[in-house]
Amino acid sequence: MSHNSFGHLFRVTTFGESHGPAIGCVVDGTPPGLPLAEADLQRDLDRRRPGQSRHTTQRREADQARILSGVFEGRTTGTPIAVLIENTDQRSKDYSEIAAKYRPGHADYTYEAKYGLRDYRGGGRSSARETACRVAAGGIARVVLGPSVIVRAALVQVGADRLTVPRKDWDWDEVGRNPFFCPDAATAERWGDLMDGVRKAGSSVGAVVQVEAEGVPPGWGAPLYGKLDQDICSALMSINAVKGVEIGAGFAAAALSGEDNADEMMPGPDGRPVFTDNHAGGILGGISTGQTVVARMAVKPTSSILNPRRTVDREGHATDIVTKGRHDPCVGIRAVPVAEAMLACVLADHRLRHRAQCGEGAC
Amino acid sequence: MSHNSFGHLFRVTTFGESHGPAIGCVVDGTPPGLPLAEADLQRDLDRRRPGQSRHTTQRREADQARILSGVFEGRTTGTPIAVLIENTDQRSKDYSEIAAKYRPGHADYTYEAKYGLRDYRGGGRSSARETACRVAAGGIARVVLGPSVIVRAALVQVGADRLTVPRKDWDWDEVGRNPFFCPDAATAERWGDLMDGVRKAGSSVGAVVQVEAEGVPPGWGAPLYGKLDQDICSALMSINAVKGVEIGAGFAAAALSGEDNADEMMPGPDGRPVFTDNHAGGILGGISTGQTVVARMAVKPTSSILNPRRTVDREGHATDIVTKGRHDPCVGIRAVPVAEAMLACVLADHRLRHRAQCGEGAC
Amino acid sequence: MSHNSFGHLFRVTTFGESHGPAIGCVVDGTPPGLPLAEADLQRDLDRRRPGQSRHTTQRREADQARILSGVFEGRTTGTPIAVLIENTDQRSKDYSEIAAKYRPGHADYTYEAKYGLRDYRGGGRSSARETACRVAAGGIARVVLGPSVIVRAALVQVGADRLTVPRKDWDWDEVGRNPFFCPDAATAERWGDLMDGVRKAGSSVGAVVQVEAEGVPPGWGAPLYGKLDQDICSALMSINAVKGVEIGAGFAAAALSGEDNADEMMPGPDGRPVFTDNHAGGILGGISTGQTVVARMAVKPTSSILNPRRTVDREGHATDIVTKGRHDPCVGIRAVPVAEAMLACVLADHRLRHRAQCGEGAC
Amino acid sequence: MSHNSFGHLFRVTTFGESHGPAIGCVVDGTPPGLPLAEADLQRDLDRRRPGQSRHTTQRREADQARILSGVFEGRTTGTPIAVLIENTDQRSKDYSEIAAKYRPGHADYTYEAKYGLRDYRGGGRSSARETACRVAAGGIARVVLGPSVIVRAALVQVGADRLTVPRKDWDWDEVGRNPFFCPDAATAERWGDLMDGVRKAGSSVGAVVQVEAEGVPPGWGAPLYGKLDQDICSALMSINAVKGVEIGAGFAAAALSGEDNADEMMPGPDGRPVFTDNHAGGILGGISTGQTVVARMAVKPTSSILNPRRTVDREGHATDIVTKGRHDPCVGIRAVPVAEAMLACVLADHRLRHRAQCGEGAC
Repeated sequence: MSHNSFGHLFRVTTFGESHGPAIGCVVDGTPPGLPLAEADLQRDLDRRRPGQSRHTTQRREADQARILSGVFEGRTTGTPIAVLIENTDQRSKDYSEIAAKYRPGHADYTYEAKYGLRDYRGGGRSSARETACRVAAGGIARVVLGPSVIVRAALVQVGADRLTVPRKDWDWDEVGRNPFFCPDAATAERWGDLMDGVRKAGSSVGAVVQVEAEGVPPGWGAPLYGKLDQDICSALMSINAVKGVEIGAGFAAAALSGEDNADEMMPGPDGRPVFTDNHAGGILGGISTGQTVVARMAVKPTSSILNPRRTVDREGHATDIVTKGRHDPCVGIRAVPVAEAMLACVLADHRLRHRAQCGEGAC
Repeated sequence: MSHNSFGHLFRVTTFGESHGPAIGCVVDGTPPGLPLAEADLQRDLDRRRPGQSRHTTQRREADQARILSGVFEGRTTGTPIAVLIENTDQRSKDYSEIAAKYRPGHADYTYEAKYGLRDYRGGGRSSARETACRVAAGGIARVVLGPSVIVRAALVQVGADRLTVPRKDWDWDEVGRNPFFCPDAATAERWGDLMDGVRKAGSSVGAVVQVEAEGVPPGWGAPLYGKLDQDICSALMSINAVKGVEIGAGFAAAALSGEDNADEMMPGPDGRPVFTDNHAGGILGGISTGQTVVARMAVKPTSSILNPRRTVDREGHATDIVTKGRHDPCVGIRAVPVAEAMLACVLADHRLRHRAQCGEGAC
Repeated sequence: MSHNSFGHLFRVTTFGESHGPAIGCVVDGTPPGLPLAEADLQRDLDRRRPGQSRHTTQRREADQARILSGVFEGRTTGTPIAVLIENTDQRSKDYSEIAAKYRPGHADYTYEAKYGLRDYRGGGRSSARETACRVAAGGIARVVLGPSVIVRAALVQVGADRLTVPRKDWDWDEVGRNPFFCPDAATAERWGDLMDGVRKAGSSVGAVVQVEAEGVPPGWGAPLYGKLDQDICSALMSINAVKGVEIGAGFAAAALSGEDNADEMMPGPDGRPVFTDNHAGGILGGISTGQTVVARMAVKPTSSILNPRRTVDREGHATDIVTKGRHDPCVGIRAVPVAEAMLACVLADHRLRHRAQCGEGAC
Repeated sequence: MSHNSFGHLFRVTTFGESHGPAIGCVVDGTPPGLPLAEADLQRDLDRRRPGQSRHTTQRREADQARILSGVFEGRTTGTPIAVLIENTDQRSKDYSEIAAKYRPGHADYTYEAKYGLRDYRGGGRSSARETACRVAAGGIARVVLGPSVIVRAALVQVGADRLTVPRKDWDWDEVGRNPFFCPDAATAERWGDLMDGVRKAGSSVGAVVQVEAEGVPPGWGAPLYGKLDQDICSALMSINAVKGVEIGAGFAAAALSGEDNADEMMPGPDGRPVFTDNHAGGILGGISTGQTVVARMAVKPTSSILNPRRTVDREGHATDIVTKGRHDPCVGIRAVPVAEAMLACVLADHRLRHRAQCGEGAC
């Protein structure tokens, strides 16, 4: 079973709490002989790292990934790859309030309802700090996928402000230049202003992330409970604060006619069909079509805000709480590399699963 | 692994193709001593059964579930429960066109890309006929959950026409009275007109289903890759034609502020907190809060339509196809009991998982 | 989890009780495009079938396997293969004694201690009748392995009478000719006399089965909890009445010196090393060496005997019981094709697992 | 899947190589609220630690377990418990010989056949050093089992010299006093002489370990592929150098009659039946009877010996090899606490599995 593992053949287990000595992951099932170095993990860890702009938390973590096993002389050996990331900025603070009261929108109450106790320091296991482990695992997944599969994501909505630039006009280079992972400079500037207002108000705001994979060959995925889209949704929904996921046209598909929704096929140059559009998001019947895989996820606004909220304490009495500390006013921003990592992990898993059942063919 | 199983402790494996001799499922992990009869499965199978109104396919299937094992003298024994549903209306027809061409929006091309061959009769394994097995399993899941947990669903959108009746004014009895599982009679009538137009046009249309569970105690679910919302999304996304899933406020949460989204808590009558709202959809940090669990799923329009579409044949040549036969013009309608079944299965699984780790307490 | 499934990528789930309407299995993960017919399953089912000699139970079961799914036009489609075997000879009898008392050596008491109830007709789920499902699955596994891997077993001990013919002098054709699956005609005759005595005494006797696989390439298996020998032992130990399993030299290895036990290597004709002996049973570090894989399992004597035994009834009172009915006086005999089936299933699983992680190479 | 994880609900994943920076494990599924400290792990780690007598390897490892997560204020939180053990005595040496040649009886050849490369330093992942992780996990398992279940093991055979003291006369205190975990002082002395001879000869010798659990209530385990005995055998067989496993009477059961083997039942003082003997090893039909659970495992002689052996090098040429370095001349000795740990882990897993399906009852 495993509450803290995901994937079947490319299998990731994470551990660690926000304010414990370290967090980390164990990745099992990686093919042998692949070149892998800590730098392969660090690239995306640095993109996810807090404190890189005024729009994210000011907690300072080096997020330095250390590989403890599974790599020998620069190559994967096929044995489990353990990655350790030490927690260095566990600022000493007074946790008595958060220990005694349940923060609205957080997992404080539910963890305690389930387990009877909780590590209340910084959210413990429920902290988004754990997503650093996902990003490290995603770095390994990218190596498993190889250069032919490109996984990348962008922020497409901050609060109610949706990116209106059509997909074909996105500038992927721009994604790496602004603090919002936004594929349009003007929109990023607008979001900067929006976020400044949110931060000054001591409030927070949600976001939507779009994540894509190019170069996935036809045939990955499996009916009926190992569908590629199902596993992508499961992976994205497992990220902190995500409340919705969709593939291709997603919820908008409900309003379409069969004619408008079902992408027609035409002969393609390499024998594979070419599709007239991509409402399917690159997946039909749970199996990849060869088109770009497209998913989106909705991230709720950060529940930690500076304005007082009504709640109850552990004894069940009514009280108020203000969540001080260093928080992201929009957790959706730093969720962008996390979404990429999860998609990469799912695809690496399905690459191996496809190879297991159907042989080397399309891999 | 298992491409065709879902759940961990309440574990369902399905088998069968649309036009094979039978479909069925094996349910493993059911607690012993529970009263169970075929009638417990038949109730929802009859709700899902085709041919019950002019708005669904006219294929006639008895969908009679037969329990082959795991029940003795009217009680579950704790051993696997096998359920068999024979395919009785496999109308002999000419499959040569569908065998030779890929229907747009269907899994024809992807199955063949993956496996190199496919059972083309009626969609084979990718046919929604398989959902009868899910509904049978859901009947067992309901028995595992017991009467304190109520799982029910309704259609909330057909095409672009969204139900506008506020949730508090829904009439659950009405859901059982109209052919749309709609909690409002007037809306159902409107949808009837809409569907008549769609059917006459030889077209199809999408839909949105909302599924809920009342009576789930706090504490079900688990961080971080066994989250209750994650498993619900995975289960719903595994249903044919589903392209999006969301929990509670879902995608709308992205546009909310932290103040508006995070449900405040107040002391409740029984010691448990009462929440001021349910943007969370009954789940925080992947664990149930004790509120009603709320999920929605978007179903794409049926890809089988009477209007000719462009496609390619197995040899890669351009051609046209018209999907004749008996099809649901809105597969979202019959997906309503399927969504209930999937939610029931996920909850039954998490009930057992919670009991395994944390003991009898909240169960 | 799944109490009633085994294997990961070649995954078998069985269901059914001795005296229910049917037993069966679902096999998931089979590669597509393989030729498969019911006859491929029937061959070994017929070898396992009861009533073929005076030395096995006189229960008459046709054991006719019916494939319900996963095969189309004579080839596997990659979807789950469901196999159904009806129970035809469920002789009506009076079960009141076995319902009220626990038979020594049987699972009556433990099932009831676990589940609070049990299907007492013929042992219910704990009956060796379930092994027919294993044999059916093994038939599919053989197809997955292909002709280059030969899995076969023989009886090497009946009661205290051990086969003394050296392994190199075994006659595999003889195995198919005598009722004991014995590779030596003279020994088979001796065992026939031994069994006649056992049967006349109303007693029973144990046995040891040796099962082997030739043609397994080097590289199947995996450290450290997916070892090939570990999975073989798990599979054999899951067979009814098995109390011990060993690989290669097995328990005898404990008494050897390092010099005597560790097989030396020499250059072989095809670039692979040749081993001087096979104490390892074809497996080192959990991974196949390319030699013949060799395992043995000890089967306890049938607990159903005609001589009265002391026991307790459901109310906890002391009583006596005689297990009448049609029983195998040596269940080890019919366990021979079951052992083959289990080894074939494990190897098919590991073939796919190896291909998943390491590619087509050695497969 | 996971090649490097075991257990379902009490799930252990290990990582690390003999000469990497560290080894460790992640234990998922532990119930919350249990008191746990590093000392609970250290007790058995110290028993397994090398260099404690002249009969084990002289490698010096502190084997200091550090808990990185899952414990807060001295209690388990229900989140994954990560344990790190640093490798401190990685003596610098010349690995060129072992890098170029395959040691007979070792996993050198098979790892390379599977993966195409191997971490040759000290055996890499195949080194028995990994068993320290198992022992750490076993310490957690003991806490999950609580004081009512006592798991302990003893050495019962060294080379061909079998302990002849009847089980009822064993002295468990003596097990802790001599370097052989032997329940009889005189036998331990005899084994000391035997081992001195083996060591002087530069040879090695095998052993048999018996491991037991008292206090297991009736009802743990599950048919048919989650049998308690099956999982115990799988766990023991996964230990380095183990070549055979048996339950209760084991292989000796094959030679018994049904009368002699099937333990009769009599009314017991507390309503539970009392068995006349324990040929079953505490397990019937895969489910615990309430008697002491008894298993044995055969450990092959260490393959690293000082006498030259014939082998091949990576290029396939014939050559000789002498395995120098610090090795256990009888790995079976230090396998004793490892066997305990594995049994404890299996029982902890089955305790949770039983509770999941059948409720708190017998737990």
